[in-house]
Amino acid sequence: MESTDRDDGPAFQSVFENRVRFAETDLQGIVFYGEYFTFQDEAVTEFFRQIGYGFEEMIDRGWQTHVANTELNYREGAELGDVIENELRVVEFGTASFTSEYRARRKDDSSLLADGTVTHVAVDLETDETIPVPDEFREAIAAFQGGLESIE
Amino acid sequence: MESTDRDDGPAFQSVFENRVRFAETDLQGIVFYGEYFTFQDEAVTEFFRQIGYGFEEMIDRGWQTHVANTELNYREGAELGDVIENELRVVEFGTASFTSEYRARRKDDSSLLADGTVTHVAVDLETDETIPVPDEFREAIAAFQGGLESIE
Amino acid sequence: MESTDRDDGPAFQSVFENRVRFAETDLQGIVFYGEYFTFQDEAVTEFFRQIGYGFEEMIDRGWQTHVANTELNYREGAELGDVIENELRVVEFGTASFTSEYRARRKDDSSLLADGTVTHVAVDLETDETIPVPDEFREAIAAFQGGLESIE
Amino acid sequence: MESTDRDDGPAFQSVFENRVRFAETDLQGIVFYGEYFTFQDEAVTEFFRQIGYGFEEMIDRGWQTHVANTELNYREGAELGDVIENELRVVEFGTASFTSEYRARRKDDSSLLADGTVTHVAVDLETDETIPVPDEFREAIAAFQGGLESIE
Repeated sequence: MESTDRDDGPAFQSVFENRVRFAETDLQGIVFYGEYFTFQDEAVTEFFRQIGYGFEEMIDRGWQTHVANTELNYREGAELGDVIENELRVVEFGTASFTSEYRARRKDDSSLLADGTVTHVAVDLETDETIPVPDEFREAIAAFQGGLESIE
Repeated sequence: MESTDRDDGPAFQSVFENRVRFAETDLQGIVFYGEYFTFQDEAVTEFFRQIGYGFEEMIDRGWQTHVANTELNYREGAELGDVIENELRVVEFGTASFTSEYRARRKDDSSLLADGTVTHVAVDLETDETIPVPDEFREAIAAFQGGLESIE
Repeated sequence: MESTDRDDGPAFQSVFENRVRFAETDLQGIVFYGEYFTFQDEAVTEFFRQIGYGFEEMIDRGWQTHVANTELNYREGAELGDVIENELRVVEFGTASFTSEYRARRKDDSSLLADGTVTHVAVDLETDETIPVPDEFREAIAAFQGGLESIE
Repeated sequence: MESTDRDDGPAFQSVFENRVRFAETDLQGIVFYGEYFTFQDEAVTEFFRQIGYGFEEMIDRGWQTHVANTELNYREGAELGDVIENELRVVEFGTASFTSEYRARRKDDSSLLADGTVTHVAVDLETDETIPVPDEFREAIAAFQGGLESIE
């Protein structure tokens, strides 16, 4: 539950922006907490797409990713019409996995709505077994976000 | 926008029951209107599953279905905790398509929440072209709901 | 199931654009048909927001809308990464209701993905009874889309 | 990312069962990871409902809950038609918050699909400020699950 709002490490990339949809609110009048994982996933998808690793491009290379773990802290509720800025940076690489930090901010006043992490594993398309994260992918990430050094 | 609440034709089958989830409500305090298509689809899936045409079983037979058209009338709002009874009957067969009537009722008092239709086309798995609806499928439906005569 | 792709009537307004999210696809590899109602609703919300009738602004005026009926025809499947252009025009006014035509197009090649209608009723906030659609609202729509004449 | 599959502490309560819906799958052919938070939330809602603290009943008592943090580990993918058993137990109480452990199992073979935690804060309805978790609520939980002792 610790904050991810730090200045060290590679820079957060603002990769996806969305206006809160009516269908995403619940009867408490704010965005349902589970919806943020849809936004988080879209931020990941968009981040990878921008560095040449869209879903189809990964498939063409013979691998894909699965989510192994995710965690979010909720700071403030988002309301209908709010525009959300979704930011991501990859902060850690394991043998067959990598962990990204995610932040959702209200665009209007930059206030933090939610933040947390998501860990993906790399999986071979044919065997469905985990594989080492490809070096080229790691390098494309480093080039995009300005480095890979762990922030731990 | 005409009512589908008729006594003639094959009998509606109550195939799927669900309690309204928090995530399915919106800031007006009732189930978001688009969610009913998830319930409708689950009613269709469950109807077919019960007659031996689950998704995988269709795939094994070399075909699947796509939705071509759907329409719903909204009668009353469903609230958190309401249990919804989802009813379906297949009412019309075209060459490559078939149309089902769908009804969502509040279990507590049987009041109608939404009703309408959904039309599926049968599609060949390999060519992705429409195909005649298989006779065996039609017969399985007739046996399940007690007839096929059109209600038009 | 008739086409709404006509040249007469007020002009369709392109009010909302969205890139298909991973979570919106299903195991057939395309956007689940029920998701289009989320896009349709967002097109409606955005259309009204742009003419000064955002959700909160309606509430402040003492009324809101409920969906009474909706229908969609599915023309082509949208895939992950496709950008969808959502277009809307209000085509008919009843005493307490109004009907809009909706179209979803793939931005890349302008091909039609889905089209149909949605009918809203105007509801008084306090009594929860239907009310005549306010004239000012009707005029704001006419000004925005260039007319109100029915296309029937 | 540690396992929550332990024998000590209060007993997990199986409070909610759901068959995977077509709309909940994604193009990888399994349930989208974000959907589990809808299931988790429904497990929480149902757990509380069964001990007399349904959403409306909390509102009547002058308070409600907000999610402050949630984390899930993904163990195995759920497929269309799988029935999921959702289990919950409350494992820790803070001053104004409480943390529950959640597990999703495939009913067929009891295999673990996902597990993790969710932390709620108690919030006063009028002031929207956090409040101490009411003793009666704590006692109702203890009676339902057979104890409250922390499992840390």
